[in-house]
Amino acid sequence: MPAIQEHPLHLEAKVRKDAQNRLLSAKGHLEGILKMLEGDPYCVDVLKQISAVQGALDKVGSIVLRSHLEHHVASAAQRGDTDKMVDELMEVLKYR
Amino acid sequence: MPAIQEHPLHLEAKVRKDAQNRLLSAKGHLEGILKMLEGDPYCVDVLKQISAVQGALDKVGSIVLRSHLEHHVASAAQRGDTDKMVDELMEVLKYR
Amino acid sequence: MPAIQEHPLHLEAKVRKDAQNRLLSAKGHLEGILKMLEGDPYCVDVLKQISAVQGALDKVGSIVLRSHLEHHVASAAQRGDTDKMVDELMEVLKYR
Amino acid sequence: MPAIQEHPLHLEAKVRKDAQNRLLSAKGHLEGILKMLEGDPYCVDVLKQISAVQGALDKVGSIVLRSHLEHHVASAAQRGDTDKMVDELMEVLKYR
Repeated sequence: MPAIQEHPLHLEAKVRKDAQNRLLSAKGHLEGILKMLEGDPYCVDVLKQISAVQGALDKVGSIVLRSHLEHHVASAAQRGDTDKMVDELMEVLKYR
Repeated sequence: MPAIQEHPLHLEAKVRKDAQNRLLSAKGHLEGILKMLEGDPYCVDVLKQISAVQGALDKVGSIVLRSHLEHHVASAAQRGDTDKMVDELMEVLKYR
Repeated sequence: MPAIQEHPLHLEAKVRKDAQNRLLSAKGHLEGILKMLEGDPYCVDVLKQISAVQGALDKVGSIVLRSHLEHHVASAAQRGDTDKMVDELMEVLKYR
Repeated sequence: MPAIQEHPLHLEAKVRKDAQNRLLSAKGHLEGILKMLEGDPYCVDVLKQISAVQGALDKVGSIVLRSHLEHHVASAAQRGDTDKMVDELMEVLKYR
């Protein structure tokens, strides 16, 4: 698993808290799917629940992304690290 | 959370086991992100880890979908429930 | 460009007509973006128009997919070509 | 179709040229699918060609997005329009 990295640009505290709550909820949902799989579920019901968790993770991703754009990308020209910021952002957006 | 539904078309045992293992691993990954958020992480590192979990869930979804197509959709004409099977499948694929 | 392939399983005539109309409309939209690019457009306006064309193509894809599921995949067990049908379908869905 | 909008932030000339070439090629591909549909194609072949055009449009979108991030979003804090830039970008990314 990822080590906690030191970085001059941190995730804003409020956004971090929101992301934590949403990820905790996604984890609970995932546990529900695991419980569902102890029974004899119908494939489509499993697929629907997986989609629901994906939707919740999309939402967390959007919240973190918005904060990153606001607090870090928008000020890249001021800091002089535009190329680095854009490269890593494009890399991350590829998988969205 | 979803109740375990009785259904004549069940998820194949081998696929269910595989899905369980992969979801357990995704849950561990999610716990890693939660731990990461107790520190002061960089937004992009959080986004990368969320993408990784999404990728794992996509993979579980693909495995369940393939099994569903093979064991249930391909035999829909024989059972005479093609319309129902296709409707619910299209609904699920919308969110992929 | 793709050669027209002979295949025992054809796209249903009504769906083919619908797909043709929608693709013609998408082509017109694409020509509109090309015209837009002869001027001096704002990036976000270009991105919005590209998304709109993508949405139109998604819709054509969904219509063709639904017809394929109904007329070809649902009867795979009867024809005895389930493995082939599922393999090629999973391949196509990967890129959706 | 979209009117050509006056905007202080234009798409960079080099990127505009690249986008034009790629969109022209996507248009040619779309015309190929339309020709394919005059025959009696197999659904999966149509789906594959639609995916190929989608991939080409994704690529154009990425090129325009990268240019927008570099030339307009990264300097938003300097111009003082961060909120506006981030709002419209998040809106566009929703549909990616």
